[in-house]
Amino acid sequence: MTKPVHFNILARDSQSPARLGQLDLPHGSVQTPIFMPVGTYGTVKAMTPRDLNEAKAQIILGNTFHLWLRPGLDVIKKHGGLHRFMAWDKPILTDSGGFQVFSLGALRKISEEGVTFASPINGDKLFMSPEVSMEIQAVLNSDIAMQFDECTPYEIKGQPTSEKTARASLEMSLRWGDRSLKRFRELNTGNGLFGIVQGGMFENLREFSLDAVSQQGFDGIAIGGLSVGEPKPEFERILNFTASKLPEHMPHYLMGVGTPEDLMLGVSLGIDMFDCVMPTRNARNGWLFTRFGDLKLRNSGYKDDDRPLDPTCTCYTCQNFTRSYLNHLQKANEILGSQLNTIHNLSYYLQLMTEVREALSKDRFSAYREEFHQNRQRGVEPGQD
Amino acid sequence: MTKPVHFNILARDSQSPARLGQLDLPHGSVQTPIFMPVGTYGTVKAMTPRDLNEAKAQIILGNTFHLWLRPGLDVIKKHGGLHRFMAWDKPILTDSGGFQVFSLGALRKISEEGVTFASPINGDKLFMSPEVSMEIQAVLNSDIAMQFDECTPYEIKGQPTSEKTARASLEMSLRWGDRSLKRFRELNTGNGLFGIVQGGMFENLREFSLDAVSQQGFDGIAIGGLSVGEPKPEFERILNFTASKLPEHMPHYLMGVGTPEDLMLGVSLGIDMFDCVMPTRNARNGWLFTRFGDLKLRNSGYKDDDRPLDPTCTCYTCQNFTRSYLNHLQKANEILGSQLNTIHNLSYYLQLMTEVREALSKDRFSAYREEFHQNRQRGVEPGQD
Repeated sequence: MTKPVHFNILARDSQSPARLGQLDLPHGSVQTPIFMPVGTYGTVKAMTPRDLNEAKAQIILGNTFHLWLRPGLDVIKKHGGLHRFMAWDKPILTDSGGFQVFSLGALRKISEEGVTFASPINGDKLFMSPEVSMEIQAVLNSDIAMQFDECTPYEIKGQPTSEKTARASLEMSLRWGDRSLKRFRELNTGNGLFGIVQGGMFENLREFSLDAVSQQGFDGIAIGGLSVGEPKPEFERILNFTASKLPEHMPHYLMGVGTPEDLMLGVSLGIDMFDCVMPTRNARNGWLFTRFGDLKLRNSGYKDDDRPLDPTCTCYTCQNFTRSYLNHLQKANEILGSQLNTIHNLSYYLQLMTEVREALSKDRFSAYREEFHQNRQRGVEPGQD
Repeated sequence: MTKPVHFNILARDSQSPARLGQLDLPHGSVQTPIFMPVGTYGTVKAMTPRDLNEAKAQIILGNTFHLWLRPGLDVIKKHGGLHRFMAWDKPILTDSGGFQVFSLGALRKISEEGVTFASPINGDKLFMSPEVSMEIQAVLNSDIAMQFDECTPYEIKGQPTSEKTARASLEMSLRWGDRSLKRFRELNTGNGLFGIVQGGMFENLREFSLDAVSQQGFDGIAIGGLSVGEPKPEFERILNFTASKLPEHMPHYLMGVGTPEDLMLGVSLGIDMFDCVMPTRNARNGWLFTRFGDLKLRNSGYKDDDRPLDPTCTCYTCQNFTRSYLNHLQKANEILGSQLNTIHNLSYYLQLMTEVREALSKDRFSAYREEFHQNRQRGVEPGQD
């Protein structure tokens, strides 16, 4: 069997660890650095596949846990996988389902074998383990599956997680990683599997995890357990430390991150892949990201503002609609508001990544990053020119 | 000033009063018979303007009452009218706002001068009259405005409306029609104004109203006061009676109707224009109209049905998605479900009108209507081929 995931670094920034790359996957190639829109229940909320194509999405994320519960595996199996089910023919990455299972709190019980929990849909008693997660992801037939791991929480019962607990957690994740790899290879899907670095807020544990995960035989490596409630300086400290030690040749994926500024920081540290619900969720709440800062549509100053969200943006929303119209749709709770806002936010995130790649290809990433921050800090005010 | 509305009859059915026509309006020509999707708050719910274009919408309806309250006239004036506000450059028809004002029940007070009522948005005391309605519609700059009238209810306090009440109501509507025309002419918008036939369930009153409205000088004529809660035989009796006496040379608009079967009946009686919230509202509730009958998506038989809604339909939804996927989106309350269902339902309604026009152009409307009923009665069952 040929290797399902090929990753080539096409250019390196001369002033930072940032790199331009290409990830070849069963359903197509992905240019990195890239942002992956999140499609929890087999839909990136409020976006048709053609909207996603137009926004230049190259790869999207599906949630294993959600799809397992609804519509269930039989339905997706009948479609031959998630691609046909949701009519998306480009690459898909699926998470392992672990993060959602652990989020159930009192409803779940963890053991070495796996996690027993009650379905939040119908209360059925269910069991998830590394093997079960791989079997589900094989049915989904995602281009990239993620290992089953435990995402070490930042706090437990109001106290920061102790080093001892974080170590026990990451060691179990390592064993679960081996079991994930073993079962995934048996399933012979032709897809790739990524490992996940844990270790909480402890640099020694992060290094220990990273060295071990790098050796396990995964097709790529992810940083997990960030953006889980920790203060921003802690986030930056662990991201800096961990990213600097990632194995050069593998694709680097920073899970669940983040704002445009977070993405720019990640790229500068050598991250290749990002996902986050922020652009889609905030869009539905009327929070728009633009080149010139963030814009909260419900602000009454936008009521009669007849300019586009961002005059430099080429998305369908900015080409056709005014802030005033979007303010109206938001206040009237119209579905079209969610559609147009999501089109814009994802277009902005993906355009940002396109510009980052262009800058990297010309070795002017640092200058681009400087412009980015200047523009973002300028701010979007109602009534400004 | 040249006449804003030109209506030409291009072909007549040899076996019924059905006719093929063309309505030339300031923002373009409309081929009739036609269905007009309803865009209450400046958006056909869950549809972008390009979705509407792709579904072959030629003209849409806007609600004067809703837009007056939100976003308000200042905002729409700043955009130069409703077209630019909602980024729809084809014709728009607006209702007069009367129907919504009267629906407020105890919250409104009617006099010869007009209607006083409390805003359902913020409780403000407001006043609407024929003159106010024309002024609002002039700001909206719709291609076709509707006269301000009173829609005679089918029942008042549980009793069918008496002939005396229905007569007083239609006589006031006639006076309001004259006032509407006078104010509309003064406003000199370059758009058209339609009159409305009332008269409740009384044929003599319908005939009286129709004769008077036909003479008032409107650019088109509408049948109002149907589909307001009356039994189906009453609807058909009054529609048959009234449609048969409509002035031949004017465009005929049946307001607020209806199912695909209602549209086919209307066409056979010489109706040219229809509007109804049914295809859009039902779509959001998972009720799909198809050539082969109606399909309720939540039916568990569709859970693993991997066929399109209608194999003969060329809409984006039917070309890309399975009933199973749409069943899943409906059960998960995903916004994309509303989008895809609305695309299908409007595409079906508009395709039906396209096929009606093709049949009329070949003088085979009766045969087409027969096929339509056979197909619709066949039914859509989960699991059938």
